[in-house]
Amino acid sequence: MTQLKNDRFLRALLRQPVDRTPVWMMRQAGRYLPEYRETRARAGSFMDLCRNTELATEVTLQPLRRFPLDAAILFSDILTIPDAMGLGLRFEAGEGPVFDRPVRSAADVARLGVPDMEDDLGYVMDAVRSIRRALDGEVPLIGFSGSPWTLATYMVEGGSSKTFGRVKAMIYDDPQTAHALLGVLADAVTEYLNAQIRAGAQAVQIFDTWGGVLTGRDYREFSLAYMARIVEGLIREHEGRRVPVILFTKGGGQWLEAMAETGADALGLDWTTDIGEARRRVGDKVALQGNMDPSMLYASPARIREEVETILSHFGPGSGHVMNLGHGIHPDVSPEHAAAFVNAVVELSPAYH
Amino acid sequence: MTQLKNDRFLRALLRQPVDRTPVWMMRQAGRYLPEYRETRARAGSFMDLCRNTELATEVTLQPLRRFPLDAAILFSDILTIPDAMGLGLRFEAGEGPVFDRPVRSAADVARLGVPDMEDDLGYVMDAVRSIRRALDGEVPLIGFSGSPWTLATYMVEGGSSKTFGRVKAMIYDDPQTAHALLGVLADAVTEYLNAQIRAGAQAVQIFDTWGGVLTGRDYREFSLAYMARIVEGLIREHEGRRVPVILFTKGGGQWLEAMAETGADALGLDWTTDIGEARRRVGDKVALQGNMDPSMLYASPARIREEVETILSHFGPGSGHVMNLGHGIHPDVSPEHAAAFVNAVVELSPAYH
Repeated sequence: MTQLKNDRFLRALLRQPVDRTPVWMMRQAGRYLPEYRETRARAGSFMDLCRNTELATEVTLQPLRRFPLDAAILFSDILTIPDAMGLGLRFEAGEGPVFDRPVRSAADVARLGVPDMEDDLGYVMDAVRSIRRALDGEVPLIGFSGSPWTLATYMVEGGSSKTFGRVKAMIYDDPQTAHALLGVLADAVTEYLNAQIRAGAQAVQIFDTWGGVLTGRDYREFSLAYMARIVEGLIREHEGRRVPVILFTKGGGQWLEAMAETGADALGLDWTTDIGEARRRVGDKVALQGNMDPSMLYASPARIREEVETILSHFGPGSGHVMNLGHGIHPDVSPEHAAAFVNAVVELSPAYH
Repeated sequence: MTQLKNDRFLRALLRQPVDRTPVWMMRQAGRYLPEYRETRARAGSFMDLCRNTELATEVTLQPLRRFPLDAAILFSDILTIPDAMGLGLRFEAGEGPVFDRPVRSAADVARLGVPDMEDDLGYVMDAVRSIRRALDGEVPLIGFSGSPWTLATYMVEGGSSKTFGRVKAMIYDDPQTAHALLGVLADAVTEYLNAQIRAGAQAVQIFDTWGGVLTGRDYREFSLAYMARIVEGLIREHEGRRVPVILFTKGGGQWLEAMAETGADALGLDWTTDIGEARRRVGDKVALQGNMDPSMLYASPARIREEVETILSHFGPGSGHVMNLGHGIHPDVSPEHAAAFVNAVVELSPAYH
């Protein structure tokens, strides 16, 4: 394997000294980039793009050509696992993801099995291998998965939801079925992330987009417990190097202490939590990733720079911080504003190290 | 004025002894009730219903006929103030509220004035007076308003939003204009709530539906500071009785200490915060209202009852708790499940007093 030329992202996740704060952006390969929209148009559907090794590699690399980012992230979707489980994933215009065969009963759950990582999800591993080759050691590659709870919300609701009425009725009235579903998902996510690590992912992130819609009790029982089980089952060392794990629960600011107990190396923060307070709460256990409001990218470059300075100063001196947005970049922001964000981190953060 | 027959809601907000925990539901007069849908169909548009004194009174009373609730809440909309400011409010099917003349610039803000509470918003005061008369002292009447920040989001975006890109660009790039807008809104909300109190509202709640989309710093500067100013300006005693003020910020669980400093009598909690922890944090300063997940009403009556018991036991013995949902009741829940919630509070809570 090629020597890694820039490892400050991996070092910061392990709270090892770095020359400056590393930076990447959730959904950095995406619709806000005209070159992405051009490639996407060539690919066909969104899932066609995910399944096309060459084009998935291309869109993964696009933001790295524009911005001095310290990590690449696999271009894929969080719903690849339920898709591989046979639920029939479609993306409807204006409606988001839709499953033709949602999971509603114990019998539906009983039919689900862990997909084969090469037969059913080989296209993801092909993308990981191809991106890793194309990166040629420039920066590390992040693999990822949705959390079991987040995947379950889509599988039970049959798509996006505002109230999460069906999946909540399941955890409230039939917790046994919910636990069976979350159990098979935890097994699948563990194998999926391990397969990504074997294929070349040098860090992994678990996206718990919907953990924040639960009560604290239910979060611990139905989301966090399964993420902890995944962390437990992951390959933690590969190619002679620690493979850091990042947990990101949107809306999880009230539960950081519990998240830090899972054994994850880092926690992703959304923008509602002050990163300085988060560091005081859990900074002795984990690194922190985040957390600029993605809507700050609608502001002027000068204001964006000011916000980067605020976040850096609130985190304070020393390693253990990966700068990022607090959620995915919005599709209608200007790439110049994304550049202002990344450049501000590059320019302002050395003072903190 | 008629003697108030049931004052346990007002007493609990002031942390005075009560025989059982009082209960009401946010949006209790609403679409989940068939009798509401029938009245709504007779009224014409949603705003026609708000403006029709007789029908607004009718829908306010409907849930009280079904359930042993301890408070009524004025039937109205949070957008009455921007509507009265001349922004041209419409409700589009599937799209929610739309303003024909959104507020985008300092000049737009300069044109705004505090509406006249009888000339422009007299229909709200008429509804308060009529409902108060119709209640005949059975339970207290709650008046309400949206928070300045929440109103500003709709006024600047021109309707609902996912990213709050325009209003956030305003607070980030042009905070002076944002403060001017929030200032006139704070003045208007203060006069509006005071007019409701004079017309007969015996407690008031400020709904900060969108405070939780801000960073903690911006929440304090652009939402909480204006709610504190309103609390400062409110009539706190009327008809020889304290008029309690409830602050509800959805997603505000991380900021309860700051909210408790405003001088509000009570804080509304959404369901992501444990009410026992909230009591330990701020229970010496304020009462707490909430906080069952509204989606719990999709579960069975037995499960709903269990959750009520959990919330009561987490709050623990003594006064200072008003049971409620953590957000408005969803339109597609069954009234029988709402009954299970209210009845469980009536039956289980005396043990805690």
